[in-house]
Amino acid sequence: MKQVTILGLGIMGTSLGLALKQLKSPPRVIGNDIQYDAAQQASKLKSIDRIERDPTVAVSGSDLVVVATPVGATSELLQTIAAALPDGCVVTDIGSTKREIVKQAEACLPSTVGFIGGHPMTGPTSAGVDGPSASIYVGAVYCLTPTANTPPDAVKVVVSMVHEIGARPYFVDPSEHDGLVAGISHLPYLLSVALIKSIATEPGWREMSALAAGGFDTGTRLSASGAAMFADVLATNGDNVARHLDRLMEELRSLKLKLLNGDPGLRRDLEEAQQLRQQWDQQRRRDADQ
Amino acid sequence: MKQVTILGLGIMGTSLGLALKQLKSPPRVIGNDIQYDAAQQASKLKSIDRIERDPTVAVSGSDLVVVATPVGATSELLQTIAAALPDGCVVTDIGSTKREIVKQAEACLPSTVGFIGGHPMTGPTSAGVDGPSASIYVGAVYCLTPTANTPPDAVKVVVSMVHEIGARPYFVDPSEHDGLVAGISHLPYLLSVALIKSIATEPGWREMSALAAGGFDTGTRLSASGAAMFADVLATNGDNVARHLDRLMEELRSLKLKLLNGDPGLRRDLEEAQQLRQQWDQQRRRDADQ
Repeated sequence: MKQVTILGLGIMGTSLGLALKQLKSPPRVIGNDIQYDAAQQASKLKSIDRIERDPTVAVSGSDLVVVATPVGATSELLQTIAAALPDGCVVTDIGSTKREIVKQAEACLPSTVGFIGGHPMTGPTSAGVDGPSASIYVGAVYCLTPTANTPPDAVKVVVSMVHEIGARPYFVDPSEHDGLVAGISHLPYLLSVALIKSIATEPGWREMSALAAGGFDTGTRLSASGAAMFADVLATNGDNVARHLDRLMEELRSLKLKLLNGDPGLRRDLEEAQQLRQQWDQQRRRDADQ
Repeated sequence: MKQVTILGLGIMGTSLGLALKQLKSPPRVIGNDIQYDAAQQASKLKSIDRIERDPTVAVSGSDLVVVATPVGATSELLQTIAAALPDGCVVTDIGSTKREIVKQAEACLPSTVGFIGGHPMTGPTSAGVDGPSASIYVGAVYCLTPTANTPPDAVKVVVSMVHEIGARPYFVDPSEHDGLVAGISHLPYLLSVALIKSIATEPGWREMSALAAGGFDTGTRLSASGAAMFADVLATNGDNVARHLDRLMEELRSLKLKLLNGDPGLRRDLEEAQQLRQQWDQQRRRDADQ
């Protein structure tokens, strides 16, 4: 890769530039963001070599174009750049849902370019940083969602980029991806939203807010950011999230009955949850060590 | 206070000893735990001056007795020590629910001692420590639940201890206390339990577990510990938790409908949640600065 264009310079896009510029033979990185401030910030951090205000110009001469905008802006941006993409160029995105984006990308991009959807399972919280950092991608699982229409060369180029920034490629069908992330990412976020909305609008909130500490902090933390981003994401994944929500509400109904009946089985439920969580924690550590 | 007895030397009890021994004129601290290892550990950390294996002997000669056992063990321990308590001694506990404990304490303790229930709203997570530390209490809200039967002198002694260890007394009726903590502490814990139980038993968990990252980590974190302790706590607060759970499930049903209908009102819900959480965060910082 001689030249990479990053469209969208939020934390993930800027971090990608930082990771690419740290390589032994770094590509030239062209950056673009609808907010010029964001592009300037990325330039100042040396995440990108050059700002280009027009996305159709930004993609000119690039081997790889990474769309790192919010999910709601991706399709329109792909349509905007479609005619300007150089022949043989590879396009990918990092959106949190893949079904719709992959469908729209395959519909609107010319056959002279290859597209493969992507979704790095990381962010500032996961990586323990509070701003752009090359380390966000290190050790992270990076979903790639090729279809029957994806040219093998496009897969190769993006897999190579994923390896170079220290992440681990994970191949998954776009629809399956959306079902999986609905459970492990969108559902926890929505629970956090429901918790703060439910408790902070109660008559007793004034007193509760004074007493709330670590547990409430952890339980509502996910609701603290990304409302606009998640609104876009959920708009493309409502069916999957609703399905997981049904199962969860079934579980809550069962717990509620046990609470009201003083059922000793409640203790087993809590212990089972503790074990399941510990097993996942152990698995994560093993995976990270590999 | 010349001598304090701490019954139960888990993280909270051991931390209390550490906080007391840091005072300018520290009291003598006698420690007891049903697990001798825990008492030895507290002694090694200099949280207590002396281990006493028999709780009825441990309270001998003390001005203040703090019961810091799990909620499920508190009532029996109060009955055990009742006859051995010195005249004029003040007794308090730090259990997460107060209705039942206060009722049982008032029923079983002799009129020659004063009892007041307590509940410090803190712990290792809130304080950002991973073991016993005097700092756990610093800046924390410390609920005190006197009743019409509480002698004013008992209130005075415990309020003075709370101030000395750097915490902030918050007076609240025992029943009201349990309603409030059901919402801000027991409900978030139960949600975390429901989330891991629901997702980690799905057919797709094998794939999901490989992709799960920061959001799932945060959403399930509370389930990782304290199953036995929370089983006791929930057994004394089922009605209150069920009430909050009803409201929460109403909120989840509303969110689910909006997800399935592509309702643009969903974005407003997410934004409202974000604002509510930010407001609480700001309030916490203001309170901590006071």
